[in-house]
Formats: sequence, C-alpha cells, structure tokens
Amino acid sequence: MTADASATASRDARFLVLEGIEGSGKSTQLATVVETLRAMGIEPECTREPGGTALGERLRGLLLDPDLPGMCPEAELLLMFAARAQHLAAVIRPALAAGHWVVSDRFTDASFAYQGAGRGLGMERVARLEDWVQGDLRPDLVLLLDIDPATGLERAVQRGRRDRIEREALEFFARVREAYLERARAYPEHYRVIDGHGTPEQVADSVRRALDEWQTKTMPRGV
Amino acid sequence: MTADASATASRDARFLVLEGIEGSGKSTQLATVVETLRAMGIEPECTREPGGTALGERLRGLLLDPDLPGMCPEAELLLMFAARAQHLAAVIRPALAAGHWVVSDRFTDASFAYQGAGRGLGMERVARLEDWVQGDLRPDLVLLLDIDPATGLERAVQRGRRDRIEREALEFFARVREAYLERARAYPEHYRVIDGHGTPEQVADSVRRALDEWQTKTMPRGV
Repeated sequence: MTADASATASRDARFLVLEGIEGSGKSTQLATVVETLRAMGIEPECTREPGGTALGERLRGLLLDPDLPGMCPEAELLLMFAARAQHLAAVIRPALAAGHWVVSDRFTDASFAYQGAGRGLGMERVARLEDWVQGDLRPDLVLLLDIDPATGLERAVQRGRRDRIEREALEFFARVREAYLERARAYPEHYRVIDGHGTPEQVADSVRRALDEWQTKTMPRGV
Repeated sequence: MTADASATASRDARFLVLEGIEGSGKSTQLATVVETLRAMGIEPECTREPGGTALGERLRGLLLDPDLPGMCPEAELLLMFAARAQHLAAVIRPALAAGHWVVSDRFTDASFAYQGAGRGLGMERVARLEDWVQGDLRPDLVLLLDIDPATGLERAVQRGRRDRIEREALEFFARVREAYLERARAYPEHYRVIDGHGTPEQVADSVRRALDEWQTKTMPRGV
C-alpha cells in the first residue's frame, strides 16, 4: 500500500457495525476487525451502543438495570434512539466527516432485532425512528455474528451475573436472531453473516475473510 | 351534586394538563386545579413530566443535570418521549381506563414549546414522535399559565440554583412562550390561557373561572 492510497482511504471513510445476540463473540471479534483494518492501513475509531458518549453510558446503565423492571417496550426503544442520536451527533458523524472509519459494537439493527422483533414492536415502528434520528445515514457494512441462542446464552452466563436483557427467555433470543438474519437476507450488499459457533480463532478467520471479500468488492483498487 | 352525578363523572374521566415556562406558577396552581375539581366531586390523580414513574424520575435527573452539557436536541426530545411512553403505559392510560381524572404538570405541549421551538427542531418533527408515542391520545384541556419570560425567570432564580434548562437565555424562553401561545390559538377548544402575572391568589381565581367555564361548556349538565 502506498501513502497515496492510504490518504485516499481516509477521505473515503466507512461505517462498520458488529451485530449479534449475547454470547456471539462481538467484543472478541471487534479486535479482529480492528487488526484487519490496521493491516489495510486504516486506524478506525471504535465505539459501542448503547453507550459511546457520557449520556449514552448513563442510558446504558438504565437500560441494563435489573432494578428497573416493567419498562415498556416503547420507552426502551426511545432510550436506545436517544443514546443513538447523541452518539451520531458527538461521535459517529464527526468521525466520518473527518475521514475516519468507525467500527461500532451494535447499532440500529439491534433495535430492529431486540425491540422490533424481540419485544414485538414491529419493524415499521423501528424504521420510523430510524428515519427520524438518522436521516439517510446507514452502516456501510454490518458483520452479523450468528449463533444459536442456547449456545450464546450459555457463554453469557459463564461471564457472570445476567443483566436485565440477558434474563429474557430463550424464545426471545430466537426471535432476535431470526430478525437479524432476515435483515441480512433483505440487504445482502451491506451484510455479511459470520458463523459464530467455532473457536474464537475460527470465527476470527471468518471475519477476516468477510472483510477482505467486502473490501475487494467495494474498493476494487485496494485501500 | 348527587352520588349519581359523581358516578357519571368518574366514568367519563378527563386528562388535564398545566403548561407554562419556568416561574409561571404551575406547581402552585396545580393545587388550585385539584381543589376546584374536588369541589366538583372529582378526586384526580396528579402527576408530572418529565417524571411520574421511577424511570421518568431517573430521566428527569439526566435531563436537568447541569453536568451533562452538550446534549443534542434530538436526544433531549427522545428522552422526553421515552419518559412520556412509560408515563402513559404505567400511569396515565391505566388511570383514565379506571375512570380517574388525571392532572399532569406538563405534557407534550412542553415538547413542542421547548424542543420544537426553543431548540429549533420544528413542530413537524415533534408531531411525528407525538403520533408514534401517543396514538390518538391528547389532553382534554390544557391550562396555559402565560407569563413574561423575564418575570418568570426572576421567580425561578429566587427559588435557588438554576438547572440546565433554566440556564438558557431569555430569547430561548421567549420562543418557548410564543410556541405555547400559538398552540393555544390553533386549538382553542382544548386550551385556556391564564394570565400568570398577578399574585398567586389572582392567578388562582383565573384558573377557577377557566375550569368552571370549560366544565360548563363540555359537560353542560354538570358533573
């Protein structure tokens, strides 16, 4: 890679998102994505949802608080989008405008999957808020780490105390997973589904291959 | 009033809201509204926004926190509607369904005035969230305590430390006041504008007269 090519890439910033249910390996594979991008000469900004800002982290605390049961699904979704609005205004849009790639651990697909499908609010209501908050902005690439909910939850439980969302029943996570897969089928140019069942190193291999293939396809002359 | 009339009233529950800028006397006049309704044989449920639920009070703390500057207007509005969604689900709709009158210190008009006009998000964007969160539900009566912003802020400052919103400039509150008045002009059947400049007792007289007139007009046979 030449210095010129790297300069071109930095002016053509992309927005990448990792999605998946609990225990799918998102946090682990975020490191793989960052390493792969670095090997391409790209230093991305890493962030997460809900969170990514001072307000977002406070809202994350509310959303995952086991002492706040009975939160209605509409309130949950609006809190997610409030955190997202701040995340976009303070982190994502400024980074992209400055030419930096952004990698986020979750974004709006999680709202479609968790609140739209999991909580039963429906895709259309989520889409209305997506338009309200994001305007035209959508991720360039979503890497969906797909895993069987029973396996994912087993991994999550081994990590320690379950938060409010991880206490949900297995059927809930089955709905969430199916919604993720449906969105990946609906927008194949922007999604790559990664099998999350293997060892971390096997999954990392799949992540690297998916990134290479996507990068070759969308930036055929290399970054 | 007969027991029968009272029973009729309780089956025909109404939703009343007090609105006004800082220092307009809402909290004081809430007591007047309650006393006036009690004299009509109605025992209302009193609540407030943002707040009214455990989640709402936590969000109220976030919204008024002077240590969280730089919150983008979209996030502020979405937090208001998140608190409102929970308020509707847990307090307002169950009370009305059980036949209880509800009196709220602020509701969605405040979002139109503060975020729509004050923060410049525009009425149309607020209206889209109003529909998303409330469906068809609107207040039966909004009592708008109208006051000059300079007078209102002087009263608010005398009460102690200014919170994040009360630190806003006077021009901000002038926009908020004008938006309130515009909405009152646009929907005269559902609004009564009360001059908030007098003594608490003078304002209380106006509140009582407005409630009597509205009640006579909307429930001609008495409650």
